Amino acid sequence: MDVVEFLKENDKVSKWLNIEVIEAKEGYVCTQMVVRKDMLNAANICHGGVIFSLADYTFALASNIYGNVALAISANINFANPAFEGDTLIAQASQLNRTKKIGLYSIQIKRKSDDTLIALFSGEVFIKSDKMLKH
Amino acid sequence: MDVVEFLKENDKVSKWLNIEVIEAKEGYVCTQMVVRKDMLNAANICHGGVIFSLADYTFALASNIYGNVALAISANINFANPAFEGDTLIAQASQLNRTKKIGLYSIQIKRKSDDTLIALFSGEVFIKSDKMLKH
Amino acid sequence: MDVVEFLKENDKVSKWLNIEVIEAKEGYVCTQMVVRKDMLNAANICHGGVIFSLADYTFALASNIYGNVALAISANINFANPAFEGDTLIAQASQLNRTKKIGLYSIQIKRKSDDTLIALFSGEVFIKSDKMLKH
Amino acid sequence: MDVVEFLKENDKVSKWLNIEVIEAKEGYVCTQMVVRKDMLNAANICHGGVIFSLADYTFALASNIYGNVALAISANINFANPAFEGDTLIAQASQLNRTKKIGLYSIQIKRKSDDTLIALFSGEVFIKSDKMLKH
Repeated sequence: MDVVEFLKENDKVSKWLNIEVIEAKEGYVCTQMVVRKDMLNAANICHGGVIFSLADYTFALASNIYGNVALAISANINFANPAFEGDTLIAQASQLNRTKKIGLYSIQIKRKSDDTLIALFSGEVFIKSDKMLKH
Repeated sequence: MDVVEFLKENDKVSKWLNIEVIEAKEGYVCTQMVVRKDMLNAANICHGGVIFSLADYTFALASNIYGNVALAISANINFANPAFEGDTLIAQASQLNRTKKIGLYSIQIKRKSDDTLIALFSGEVFIKSDKMLKH
Repeated sequence: MDVVEFLKENDKVSKWLNIEVIEAKEGYVCTQMVVRKDMLNAANICHGGVIFSLADYTFALASNIYGNVALAISANINFANPAFEGDTLIAQASQLNRTKKIGLYSIQIKRKSDDTLIALFSGEVFIKSDKMLKH
Repeated sequence: MDVVEFLKENDKVSKWLNIEVIEAKEGYVCTQMVVRKDMLNAANICHGGVIFSLADYTFALASNIYGNVALAISANINFANPAFEGDTLIAQASQLNRTKKIGLYSIQIKRKSDDTLIALFSGEVFIKSDKMLKH
């Protein structure tokens, strides 16, 4: 089992959100998710925490794919446009920098149907010497 | 029904997370949540998206309490220490600035048992002229 | 005089930094700056405040170019790699979203000689109804 | 010479800004600066890059005071209210978390005369094993 499979099986929040991994390779990860009724906030738009979680999971895939445990230490999110029930959201993570200890990733979340930007996310990880998978 | 009751009833994600509102007044909101097994990530610590969601909901309560719809436009989170299954987390939101159009809030999340900082969150809202509750 | 000329003449900090505007149009701005000895910090690398200022000025050009006053309300910066005395830095601002009231911009700063990422910046402005140039 | 003296002598940008160190101890640093005409932007308010630089220098003092080189890896700033020519600004840095490798600091900048919040800054450093002062 590789890291992507391990994360798919063991990240319980992404299971609740029903996030699908479209592509996952070193340097780039793409996921998608459909906004359900139980993901809405009181203003009837997709909850900021759900959008963050989608970005964060995509970020985790991109930063852990090399095998070492990568822990998120900071993340910034800008909410550009609201997402609604039934929208399919696409999250794309790009690796912008990676040293031995720190990795920097940018994630954009867009509505699939019209390519509207929903959120911009940037995040940094601290890379541990431990491996994610212990054999 | 006031705004706090409305958010409690209509924010579906906070229901899934089982967040309890301890105190909610203009300028200050305190909530708490217990970390469950299904809130963990693949590293067996509380998912970043769950911690963000707890902060974001507390931020939403603090920024919408005046009645006008306040939409999150940006948020930054620093993850200081991991939270584990069974931990009770306390989130405290303070209002740092509020003009007619923009509000700034700082939220700290701590472990209840030993006061360890789990995460620091800051967020800004854009305040609309619409009211959250339409009578 | 247009907004770009007005900013060039009236932004005193960018004069101190000797920032050159390479291109400025709606949606995209590119600037450059050479790192001088008096821009270094105590670790002998380019000061974080100088890198931020370069990004911030490029962001100001991109967000004010439409004529309305755009005030920065939040900014996030990730420092990827150090810049050294003598380096030419290129800052490129892209507009990611712009509504009537809020604009979102992403700025990347790279070393010109080898395209190394120095910093990633994202910023939001609040757009006022006032015009930058009063005739 | 201690780290604080070393930073005072060798941080050239803080000299240009004429930042005064009021107090510097482990866990807490306070500085102040007067806004000069050459620190203004084209909107005639204190430049965002200047406010960031004041916060960043205070953050550098707080994070390097233990002796090890601490490099800023991320920073977030929210601009709450404008500062004007002649204003004295007070920056206060608090250490919120510090592990062997990562430090988290929160800095508030206020106008001295009326305690108005000008900006909220949070920043993280990566702590190297190198010492700032080489004997």
